[in-house]
Amino acid sequence: MSFLIDGLQYANWSEKIFRQMNEGGVHAVHVTITYHETFRETVLNIEKWNRWFEKHPDLIFHGRTADDVALAKKTGRTAIFFGSQNPSCIEDDIGLVEILHTLGLRFMQLTYNNQSLLATGCYEDDDTGLTRMGRAVVTEMNRVGMVVDMSHSGERSTLEAIAHSTRPITISHANPHNWHAALRNKSDAVLKALGESGGMLGFSVYPHHLKGGSDCKLQSFCDMIARTADLMGEDHIGIGTDLCQDQPDSIVEWMRTGRWTKTIDYGEGSAAAPGFPAMPDWFEDNRHFGNVAKGLATAGLTKAQTDKIMGGNWHRFFASSFGPKDT
Amino acid sequence: MSFLIDGLQYANWSEKIFRQMNEGGVHAVHVTITYHETFRETVLNIEKWNRWFEKHPDLIFHGRTADDVALAKKTGRTAIFFGSQNPSCIEDDIGLVEILHTLGLRFMQLTYNNQSLLATGCYEDDDTGLTRMGRAVVTEMNRVGMVVDMSHSGERSTLEAIAHSTRPITISHANPHNWHAALRNKSDAVLKALGESGGMLGFSVYPHHLKGGSDCKLQSFCDMIARTADLMGEDHIGIGTDLCQDQPDSIVEWMRTGRWTKTIDYGEGSAAAPGFPAMPDWFEDNRHFGNVAKGLATAGLTKAQTDKIMGGNWHRFFASSFGPKDT
Repeated sequence: MSFLIDGLQYANWSEKIFRQMNEGGVHAVHVTITYHETFRETVLNIEKWNRWFEKHPDLIFHGRTADDVALAKKTGRTAIFFGSQNPSCIEDDIGLVEILHTLGLRFMQLTYNNQSLLATGCYEDDDTGLTRMGRAVVTEMNRVGMVVDMSHSGERSTLEAIAHSTRPITISHANPHNWHAALRNKSDAVLKALGESGGMLGFSVYPHHLKGGSDCKLQSFCDMIARTADLMGEDHIGIGTDLCQDQPDSIVEWMRTGRWTKTIDYGEGSAAAPGFPAMPDWFEDNRHFGNVAKGLATAGLTKAQTDKIMGGNWHRFFASSFGPKDT
Repeated sequence: MSFLIDGLQYANWSEKIFRQMNEGGVHAVHVTITYHETFRETVLNIEKWNRWFEKHPDLIFHGRTADDVALAKKTGRTAIFFGSQNPSCIEDDIGLVEILHTLGLRFMQLTYNNQSLLATGCYEDDDTGLTRMGRAVVTEMNRVGMVVDMSHSGERSTLEAIAHSTRPITISHANPHNWHAALRNKSDAVLKALGESGGMLGFSVYPHHLKGGSDCKLQSFCDMIARTADLMGEDHIGIGTDLCQDQPDSIVEWMRTGRWTKTIDYGEGSAAAPGFPAMPDWFEDNRHFGNVAKGLATAGLTKAQTDKIMGGNWHRFFASSFGPKDT
């Protein structure tokens, strides 16, 4: 059975977007529910999702296991899997890993650009790798079945997370640095280590991660995916669009600065372009995954390879990642 | 299949007590995990339970559905079901009902002796019944499958909860006022309404609820149960010991005064006897349920009736109460 799965979105959720997921035949999405929010604030965000699940049971439901992806396909809906882009939600309390897993959190980034209690973000000058608490939390995430996501982490931290984790990790939304030299894109060394350890890379269509930005051509993107399949193995790649549909620019400010600074940080933007960049015209919302699938065919990938990249690989990864490890 | 289920305990939990549950063949216990604690403090209490579940998987596990009671019997362990004796844990946020249900909370008292945001406690001068938020929260508890518990509520609030709730409620730990006229014990009117609505009464062995206190005779207790079976129906009664084993007296102070007063409130105790009372010699810990079963036989109850009271009724009630209502 083939699946369509997106490895990361952070949209300004609405019935319109849920309907577009439905129209696009998207079976599962890993959605960001929290960045810099405390535990209690994260719970408020889950409460918002609970209201959406209650109001739109015909379109979406809370995904907890890989079986829910098949259920979504069977019932014509989209399974929503929760993730956090920063460990603020666990505060300084390792017990919150299991609590949040029980509440459905399936992914957690160890850092979001900055140093965290767990590891170093990709925007810091020096990367000191996993902290003492970082190693303890990765072990706990491994125990309960919460996926370590290093999308916004520094190189050394990422390599140490891959090495320390006893289960495969992910970089849910980023592209190869060799294609587009953005700070957030990843080196061949990281991508190879990720693939060899059984991990997953989700290719991002967020313009700052694209060669040519908003003007990036679909075929350039898909050719890059084909080359990365050669580098990492065709079983370790998927899509992680980083779609931030309908978000006001105040949200990208929150993502970048949270409450950690009183000044402006432009992150991947600049003073001249501080807001969300325009999406490429071949991927504006959840109805456009078909464009990517067609582009992958044009790039020379087989139907079987395309199926893996569009969802099969994420589905297998979900199946082995979201609960206690089979022993 | 027969089960042994206790409808309420709040012990100073330890491996010793978990082993006694095991030795006593107790298949399930509704444990109080929180009184006056905020949501965040309640989560810290759940984290403590998670550690106990991780450390003692051979003795206990987290119970979520009635099937877990059968699993406990099959595997020789005790399933632990969470409850709250006050709604402090949901603060002023109805969304926390579903959040706490997801974290395993299966019972919540609308009040603990005092007026709450939801209803009136049994120690207030005037009982004004369910509040606006109280009605909304009962409806939400009905939706997700969290049982309304009125053990510490006033008479009018209890009758209104029975009437407003679309699903049967419980008084998990109290006795008939006609047997022992304690403020916490319940009138015939309440007990009849509870039984007629399909609810459950759990008989308490906490000495302040017993005729004769710590010196109460086993047969007096069991004869009272037999009479209550006639009043309420033999399908609507069970045991709810209110066992507070090994607790220091500082805990009964916390239960009574939380953070709501700076002076002393003796609750069911007195200045002369401020601490926990001594348990009757026929029920000191989880190994003594057999005494109650024998006493019920002596009181003239059949084996089938005794099985219902010792766990069968709670099991049926658990099966119909802990999830969304079958439609």
